[in-house]
Order: sequence, then C-alpha cells, then structure tokens
Amino acid sequence: MNNFDFYSPTRIIFGRDTQLQTGENVKQYASKALLHYGGGSIKKSGLYAQITASLKAAEVDFTELGGVVPNPRLGLVRQGIDICRREGIKFILAVGGGSVIDSAKAIALGVPYNGDVWDFFISKAKPQTALPVATVLTIPAAGSESSLSVVISNEEMQLKLGHKTNLVRPVFSILNPEFCFTLPKEQAAYGVCDMMAHIFERYFSNVPHTELTDNLCEGALRAIIANAPRVLADMHSYDAWAEIMFGGNLAHNGLLGMGRQEDWASHAIEHALSAAYDIPHGQGLAIVFPAWMKYVYKTNTALFARFAANVWGEDLPLSAEAAALKGIERTEQFFKSLGLPVRLRQINVEQSALENLARKATAFGPIGAFKRLETKDVLEIYKLAY
Amino acid sequence: MNNFDFYSPTRIIFGRDTQLQTGENVKQYASKALLHYGGGSIKKSGLYAQITASLKAAEVDFTELGGVVPNPRLGLVRQGIDICRREGIKFILAVGGGSVIDSAKAIALGVPYNGDVWDFFISKAKPQTALPVATVLTIPAAGSESSLSVVISNEEMQLKLGHKTNLVRPVFSILNPEFCFTLPKEQAAYGVCDMMAHIFERYFSNVPHTELTDNLCEGALRAIIANAPRVLADMHSYDAWAEIMFGGNLAHNGLLGMGRQEDWASHAIEHALSAAYDIPHGQGLAIVFPAWMKYVYKTNTALFARFAANVWGEDLPLSAEAAALKGIERTEQFFKSLGLPVRLRQINVEQSALENLARKATAFGPIGAFKRLETKDVLEIYKLAY
Repeated sequence: MNNFDFYSPTRIIFGRDTQLQTGENVKQYASKALLHYGGGSIKKSGLYAQITASLKAAEVDFTELGGVVPNPRLGLVRQGIDICRREGIKFILAVGGGSVIDSAKAIALGVPYNGDVWDFFISKAKPQTALPVATVLTIPAAGSESSLSVVISNEEMQLKLGHKTNLVRPVFSILNPEFCFTLPKEQAAYGVCDMMAHIFERYFSNVPHTELTDNLCEGALRAIIANAPRVLADMHSYDAWAEIMFGGNLAHNGLLGMGRQEDWASHAIEHALSAAYDIPHGQGLAIVFPAWMKYVYKTNTALFARFAANVWGEDLPLSAEAAALKGIERTEQFFKSLGLPVRLRQINVEQSALENLARKATAFGPIGAFKRLETKDVLEIYKLAY
Repeated sequence: MNNFDFYSPTRIIFGRDTQLQTGENVKQYASKALLHYGGGSIKKSGLYAQITASLKAAEVDFTELGGVVPNPRLGLVRQGIDICRREGIKFILAVGGGSVIDSAKAIALGVPYNGDVWDFFISKAKPQTALPVATVLTIPAAGSESSLSVVISNEEMQLKLGHKTNLVRPVFSILNPEFCFTLPKEQAAYGVCDMMAHIFERYFSNVPHTELTDNLCEGALRAIIANAPRVLADMHSYDAWAEIMFGGNLAHNGLLGMGRQEDWASHAIEHALSAAYDIPHGQGLAIVFPAWMKYVYKTNTALFARFAANVWGEDLPLSAEAAALKGIERTEQFFKSLGLPVRLRQINVEQSALENLARKATAFGPIGAFKRLETKDVLEIYKLAY
C-alpha cells in the first residue's frame, strides 16, 4: 500500500426533501451567493422554486447565472468571475450536475486570482485560495459534488482540461435521489458509466497489498451494476437511485484510490474525444474504457481476472487470461445493455481523425499509470474502439 | 435507505514516516498545544522523541500531560482542562490509542465549557464548541482518530459513558502502520475485535435497500479478517498492518453506517462490563458480540445468512437458519483464534454479578435498534456469554 493523504471534508446531506435545507446551510457561510445552474430543467422540475424559496427564507441574497452546458465552457466561467467580483459575492451555490458544479468550482478559483483562471488548467499557476462552493446535485455521475476535480472546456482552443485541488471540494452537497426521477434515460446511463469509470481509474493499479480498497471498489461496482438496470426499468425507483447516487459520490470522493496508484489515462483519452465532438462524457467513456482494458490487461492479468470474478461473478476455473477477457467483455456488454455506444463509429468519428485525437490526448506528455501510454498507444486504443 | 448526513472532515495522513509531518500540521492551527499521551510506550518506541522534535522544528510550544490509562478516566480529563485553561492552550495533540484520543476529545470539549465536562456524558448539557484535536495513532482499534465519539469512565461512579458530536472529529490524524510493530500481541487482537465490532454495529440493520454499504461493510470485514492472522504471525508485517490500520479507521469514520440504522447495544453491554471489571474494551467485545448475535439473529435471519456467506465464505446451500448460526460460530471461533476470551467466566466475572451489570447497561433505558433490548434481554445475553 502506498502512503496516502485522504481528505474529503464535504458534508453529504442525503435523502428525501433535503433540498429544503439549502438556505439554512448556505447561511452558515454567506448571506449572498451566486446561484449557478444549467438550462431550464430545474425550473420545470420545481427544484429552482424550492431552492430560491429556501434561500429567501434563510435571508440569503443571490444573483443568478444559468446557461451551463455539458462540457462546461470557459466563457461562462469568466462571466461568473466578473459577476462575483462586481457584486462582492463570496459563495457559489451550484444546482445541477457535474458540468454546473465544475463551472462553479472554476468560478470559485478564478474570483480571488489575479490572472486568467485558465492558467490553473494549463499548469501555468497553482491556486492559493478559492471561494467556498456548495452543491445541490441533480445528476449522479461526475462525483464533482465532493471531489477535488474540476474540468473545463476551452471552446476556442478545443481543449478540455482538468485541475485537481482540495480547495474546490464543496463545503456541503445535497443529494436527493428523487431529483433523478425526471432525468432523460440516456443521462442516467451516462452517469452510471461515468461513476464506474471513476472506480476503474482507481481499481486498476499495480500497487501490491491494497486489499481493503480492492474490496471497496468491487463492492461499490457491484452495487452500481445491480441497480443501474433497475433505474432504467423504473425511473421512479427511489431505492435503486439512492444506491446509484450514493455510489456515484463514493466513486469520486477519493477514498477508493487511497494507497493505490490511480490511472486516469481513459479520462484523458475521452476528454480529447468530447472536446472535439461535444459528446457526453459518459458516452465517450463507454467507448474508451473497454478498448483501454483490451489494450492494457496483460500488464496485470491477475487483477483483470479478479475483476471478472469479484465484480462480474465469473467462475474462476477459467484461465486468468480467459477470465480477464471475459470481464472486459462483460463490461462492454453491460454498457451496451444500458443503451450506450461502445464504438467510435457509432458516434460518427472519422477514422482519419484518430491520429489527431491521440496527439490531443497526449498533448502534455504520456498518460496513465497502470500502463504508461504514449501517443502511439493511445492511437491503438482509439483503433480498438473503432 | 434512510436519509443521512455524512461528515468526516478528518484529514488522514497515512504511511511510513508520516509522524515527521506532525509539527508542520499542528502549526497550521496553533503555536501552542497540549501533548497528551499514555504510559511510557511512546518514549520507548522513539515516537515521543520524533514528535517533540517535529513540534520544536515547527516552533510549536507544548505542555505535556501523560498518564492516560485504558478506559480513560474523568479525573485526568479534568486535570487536562485545568492545564489548558491556566496556560491558554487551544489545541490538543493526542499521541496514542483510542483511550488517549478520547481523553483528548473530552479535554477539548471541557475547556470552553462553563460547567463540568461530565454533563455532556449524562446528557445534562450539549456542547456548543470544542478545541481542535489532532492525533498520532499508535493502536488501530477504537477508530477515535476520525470518529465523532468520545467515551470516558467516571471512576467514582463506576460508569463508562459516551458522547457523540461532530465537534470532536480530529482535524487531522497521522497513521503510520510501523508503530504497530511493537504493540503487545493481545493489544493487536483487541484492536481487531474492536474494529470488527464497529462494523457489526452498523452492518446489522433492518433498514431495507442498503446494498452499497452492505457491500462496503462486508469488504472491510473480509480485509480485516484476512490480515489479522498475518499481523499476529508476524508483528512486523507492514502490509498487513496497513490493511488493519486503514480498516480500523474506515470502520468508525461513519461511512459504513450511512443510510442504515446503527445498533450499539453490544457496546453498551460491553461498557457496563469494562467499567466494572476494567478489562480491555476489545476483550469485552469478543465476549459480548457472539452472545448478542445468538440472542438477536432471528430478528433478521436472512441478513445473518448473508453475513455468513459474504463475510465468512460459507456456502449457502445451508438453510438461512443454519447459515446464520454458522456465521455466528465462525465469528466466535475467529475471536478465539486471535487468543481472545469469548466467555465471561474466562475473565472471572461472578454469575451473581450479571443482574447488576444488566441494570447498569440499561441505566438510561432500553438499548439497541436491530432489536430493542430491555434489562431482561441484556441479562439473557450476559447468560449466553457466561
């Protein structure tokens, strides 16, 4: 087990009607907030009305900034930073999914910084402080509601880059599974794939003696895999959504990677894809991850065999190699069963684009830790995904 | 799944040599601390020298208060409170196991309170604030290094009572498995039993649809069960100790109980025992828990059957009832294999004392949630444990 530093201070307020506690919780930090959200879905669902009523009841003043889109844009982030500076706002409340939360985190980093917030994403500068962020989560997927990650798309440069800092871990996040009932089904499927991918990035590690987190990763994956078909069959299943929503949070609060060496190559490979094609992140991951697995499994066949047994319940009288391949096949089949594409051609990527994508994915050097990947390796993975 | 509120802000700094970071981390909070510890073991092991050197290097002034004993006493807590008030100390650094940490937490609660700190334990008052506490853990067991619990023995009243508040969650805890190498073997066994008990108290719940935390509890238990014999066979096994130490932390940071209804009857039954006989908590739990299981399993035979299968690997062609009993037997056998007593007579408790113990355990009313236990039920459990 590697040395580690685990810090996940976000308070998770989970369950029915918890959104009604928003105002009183914000009030503990600030009496004015930027209310940040996406399109109109929170207005249709009634959540917007409940949140604003809760803020008013707690006497929290707020300025609104809607309009966050999937793969959140740097342009809107800069707008948010301007508003906060102009109005002296020192608290960001994100109501939405991972894109809204990431946009909020980027605003929180940018407000107290003297330069351009994009500096943090291109490693030109390191943030020293950030405004506090809180979230009301409507889409279980990105895990951004308690993670240290923020991913932003620079629309001019067609680059989607992330930054990691404990400074952006939300102070609290409100998770009510009922708000998942009205999600589009494909959104549910993307979310499931995203949270599974977050666990995969941590689970596939060559560090020996990581039994506790091996078990935790496998247990979380089993719970997500068991409940995903249940929510797709009945989008009003509170109990199944609760498992998925809690699972999505745990998948990315950091715990499951402690003592391990995390990989994150597949995320970089996907980011290149969604930056260029503007596809949902969860869709890209469903395409990339099985291909990544096929390319790298021989690095640690025993772990992939264990994955097949402990996550997918495959019998292990199979050879390690056969079991490993079976586990990968089960993963791909599972994504297909959720209605997700598993090949680049399904999302109309031209074969001629692959080389350029591979260069973009490795623009800042080789990626991954389970197996270090150069541009040529990433190209092979895109080919396997074609 | 029940609604829940998860908050575990303690930063866990885990691994080799991490004790050398103590001073710099304390310095972020205070330039003067109460250094609280137990007997001389940290002086013999060299840890004391490293910690004090680290504090000095970071220019953190400190006053020492040693002498914490297992089942930490209210008398020493009051002494610590006096010292802090007199010297204007606003930070407590606990170096030791659960007893030292709990003593530190009680001091942290007492310093800013106008009345007697015991008020919090008899629910006469609710704490509004506490000094920050940090820990350097030397005995993985109680989980107090990130928990919200504090348990203190009132030596005059022969009462051992606990209090729970987020105010006492340590701001950081340093966990280096190397410091377990010199533990007495029986201490290791007590610790393993204690952390398993913390998971049992959360796992045995009648709340339906708790699949994720079911899996996490089982996975954590399996990792602890697999590694306990390894540390007893080789007390210098870093890798096995790392699993145990991390497992002990996870067992009691709150996560594994989220969405469930926690029980805690067995702890109350044990506390009555260790308050009267001054036995180690882990020893008392090894005696009490199998007896509790035997008394309550019919409340949810299916869960006990699942426990047998998923934690102990028992085949499930057994009837649920037979599997449940098998799982309980395996638990008891496991505690015996660690060299722990599993019967009250082994620790020289008189049969005539049981009624009084049962009254003490239920002094504040019925206990437990999985099955609500009156004085007469607790007496039956003590009899099963005899």
